[in-house]
Amino acid sequence: MKVIILGAGLVGGPMAIDLAHDSNFEVHIADQSKNQLNAIGQDLPITTIEQDLSDKLALQHLVKSYDYVINAVPGFMGYQTIKSVIKAGVNLIDIAFMPEDPADLDDLAKSNNVSAIVDCGVAPGMSNILMGYAHNQLDETINGTIYVGGLPRKRTWPWEYKAVFSPIDVIEEYTRPARLVENYKEIRKPALTELEQIDFPVVGTLDVFNTDGLRSLIRTIKARNLKEKTLRYPGYIEKIKILKASGFFDENEIEVNGTKIKPIDFTCALLFPNWKLEKGEADFTVMQIIVDGYKNGVYKKFKYDLYDELNSETGIHSMARTTGYTATSVLRLIERGYKVTPGVIFPEFLGKDETFVKGLLLELKGKNIIYTEEIT
Amino acid sequence: MKVIILGAGLVGGPMAIDLAHDSNFEVHIADQSKNQLNAIGQDLPITTIEQDLSDKLALQHLVKSYDYVINAVPGFMGYQTIKSVIKAGVNLIDIAFMPEDPADLDDLAKSNNVSAIVDCGVAPGMSNILMGYAHNQLDETINGTIYVGGLPRKRTWPWEYKAVFSPIDVIEEYTRPARLVENYKEIRKPALTELEQIDFPVVGTLDVFNTDGLRSLIRTIKARNLKEKTLRYPGYIEKIKILKASGFFDENEIEVNGTKIKPIDFTCALLFPNWKLEKGEADFTVMQIIVDGYKNGVYKKFKYDLYDELNSETGIHSMARTTGYTATSVLRLIERGYKVTPGVIFPEFLGKDETFVKGLLLELKGKNIIYTEEIT
Repeated sequence: MKVIILGAGLVGGPMAIDLAHDSNFEVHIADQSKNQLNAIGQDLPITTIEQDLSDKLALQHLVKSYDYVINAVPGFMGYQTIKSVIKAGVNLIDIAFMPEDPADLDDLAKSNNVSAIVDCGVAPGMSNILMGYAHNQLDETINGTIYVGGLPRKRTWPWEYKAVFSPIDVIEEYTRPARLVENYKEIRKPALTELEQIDFPVVGTLDVFNTDGLRSLIRTIKARNLKEKTLRYPGYIEKIKILKASGFFDENEIEVNGTKIKPIDFTCALLFPNWKLEKGEADFTVMQIIVDGYKNGVYKKFKYDLYDELNSETGIHSMARTTGYTATSVLRLIERGYKVTPGVIFPEFLGKDETFVKGLLLELKGKNIIYTEEIT
Repeated sequence: MKVIILGAGLVGGPMAIDLAHDSNFEVHIADQSKNQLNAIGQDLPITTIEQDLSDKLALQHLVKSYDYVINAVPGFMGYQTIKSVIKAGVNLIDIAFMPEDPADLDDLAKSNNVSAIVDCGVAPGMSNILMGYAHNQLDETINGTIYVGGLPRKRTWPWEYKAVFSPIDVIEEYTRPARLVENYKEIRKPALTELEQIDFPVVGTLDVFNTDGLRSLIRTIKARNLKEKTLRYPGYIEKIKILKASGFFDENEIEVNGTKIKPIDFTCALLFPNWKLEKGEADFTVMQIIVDGYKNGVYKKFKYDLYDELNSETGIHSMARTTGYTATSVLRLIERGYKVTPGVIFPEFLGKDETFVKGLLLELKGKNIIYTEEIT
C-alpha cells in the first residue's frame, strides 16, 4: 500500500518510521520544512517530499497517486487539507484535531467515493472507538466518561506540566466552556469546573476537570450522561484558576508602558519555556473510559485503562505513540482488508465492529500500548 | 506652631485634617495637584498651596517661613525634598520611605542646626520607637522581631490583598533580598523565605515571611538577632511564589508579538486593578514587636501589639491613620516642648526617652490607635 503522511511533526515522523518498518507499506512523507524531514531516520525506506501543504492545488496533485493519506498537519490547517485530499479522491485517516466540524465534508466525501476517518488519534480517537464499542454492546447507555491527560514524568514546581502543544492550545482548554450531555441534553459548563481527584493505575491520584473534548460523541452516542475530563497533577487547577481570575488569560488588551497587549499573548510567551516538553523528556499518557448501561435488563459496566510512557530507546513521546499508532494501526487493519464505507467517518462508528476493535487493541498491544478491559 | 505638609496624598491629607483640629497649629499643605488639594476638607482652617515640589529652589523658598515641615511626598522624591528643607534651615518630620539612606544628610542637618526625624510612620516609625525603647531598657538585647502588615478586611479570592501602594512597590518586597541580623552579623536572605504561620490578636492566623524593612535598625540596635517579617492572609505567599517562579516578576524583556516587554511591567499593569484598595474600603493594620534580652542578669521580654482599622466615619484608611498619626503625634509632643537634637534622627533614638514614648502612646490612644504592651 502506497501511503503519504502529510506533516512531519512530532507525530507525523514517528508514524512514518512505524509504517516504514512494515514491508506492506511504501511510505512517503511531505512537509514544508526540510529540517523536520531530515530529522526522520535516514536509514529507513521513507521518501521525503519538501512541499508547502497549504497550496491546495499542489496538494491535490501530490496526493493523487497514493492509496491512502494520513493527515498530521497542525489543527488550523486540518480542514482545508482533508478537503483537498477528498477532492483528489484519496482515502484518508486524520489526526489533525481541527477546530471545524469535518462532518460538513461528508457529502463531498461520499460523492467522491472517499472514506475519511477523522479524529483518529488517542482522544479523540481511541476514546471514540472504545466508547462506540461499549455503547453498541448495550441496549441503553446511561453514562459515558472519558478521563484523559498527558503529563511529564518529572514534576517541576510550580506547574508540574509539560506538553508538546503550544501554551495557547493548552490554555484554550481552561477558557472554552465544556460541552457535555446531562439527562440526554447537550449543555455547557464553564471551563475548569467539577474539579475532583481520582486515583489512577500506576500514577496515583490526579486532579480531573471538565474539558470540551467530546466532539462528535455528543451527537453520535445516545446516553443519559456524557463527559470528558482532563487530568493534571494535584494542585495544578487551583494554580490555573489563580492566573485566570487575575486576568492573565484575558483577550482584552491592556496598556503596558504605552503598548497595547493581550494578556493571553503575554502569558503564552512567558509560559512557553516553562511548559515545553523537551526532546527525550519522559512523558506519559493516562486514559480511562467508563461506559455503563443495560443489556437485556442487566446492568453492565465497561472500563478501559491506558497507561503509556515515552519509549526511552527511540525517544518517541507517549503523546506521539498513543496518537500516531492509533492511526497507523487502523491503517494496518485496512491494508489487511477491513472495509471502510465512503463518507466522513468518526471513530465511534469503527467501534461498532467487534472484530475490528479486538484487532486494533492487539495491534496496539504489539507496540506495548495496552488498554486493559474490565467488564462487570 | 506654623506647619507645612508637603504632599497631599492618602497620608498627607489626613495629617493636615488632624492638625487643623488643634488650635496650637496653623496648617498649610502643598502639592502640585489641585485635585488632591481640593479633596481635603474645605471647612477646615487649612491653607492649600499649589506648588511643584520637585522644584528645589522654589521648595526652599516656600518652607523658610514655617516652624516645622512634615514630608509626605512619594518615596522617590523623598531624599531630594528633605535635603532642600534642611538647606532652608527648617526642622522636619519625614514619612516618605525613601530608598536612599537619609543618614548621608546628617552633617548637613547638624551644620544647619536642623533636626530631621526620618522614617517616622508606622513601620518604619513606631516599630523603631518601640524597639529602641525596649532595647534601651535591657543591658543585652537578644532578639528583636517586627511583624507588620496592612490587609483588606474583605478577602477576595485569589489574592485577598489590597494596598494603596502601586503593585511595583509591593512586588519589590517579593524580589529584593531581606537584610537581617543573625548572631550579631548582617546577612541577606532571599525574599519570601522563612514562611511561617502566626496567630495574631483579632485577625487570627496569618502567613509571615522575611522582608527588607529593618533599615536603620540594622546598624543602630545591637542585638544577636533582628528581623522584620510581613503579614498576609494564609496561602498568599504560595501564590506569589508561583508567579515569581514562572517569571512574571522578571526584569528581562521577553518578546510578545514582536514587542519587547518586561514581565514585571506587564504583571504590575494587570494586577493593579486587582490590588487597589478602593476609597472607603475597609483595611486594617497589624503589627507585633517582640524584643527580649537581659536586665541585671534577668531575662525580660517586651511585646507590643497593634490592631487598627479604617475609620468608617471619616473614610480614612488604617494605613493612613497608623502612618500619619505617628508623625502628627510626634509633632504634638515637640510643640509641647519635647526637644530634638540637630541632625538626622532615626525614630529608635526617640524611643530611648521613656517619657516621650509614654506620651506618644497616649497621643495615639486618643485616636484609638492602641499599642498593647506586655512585659514578662
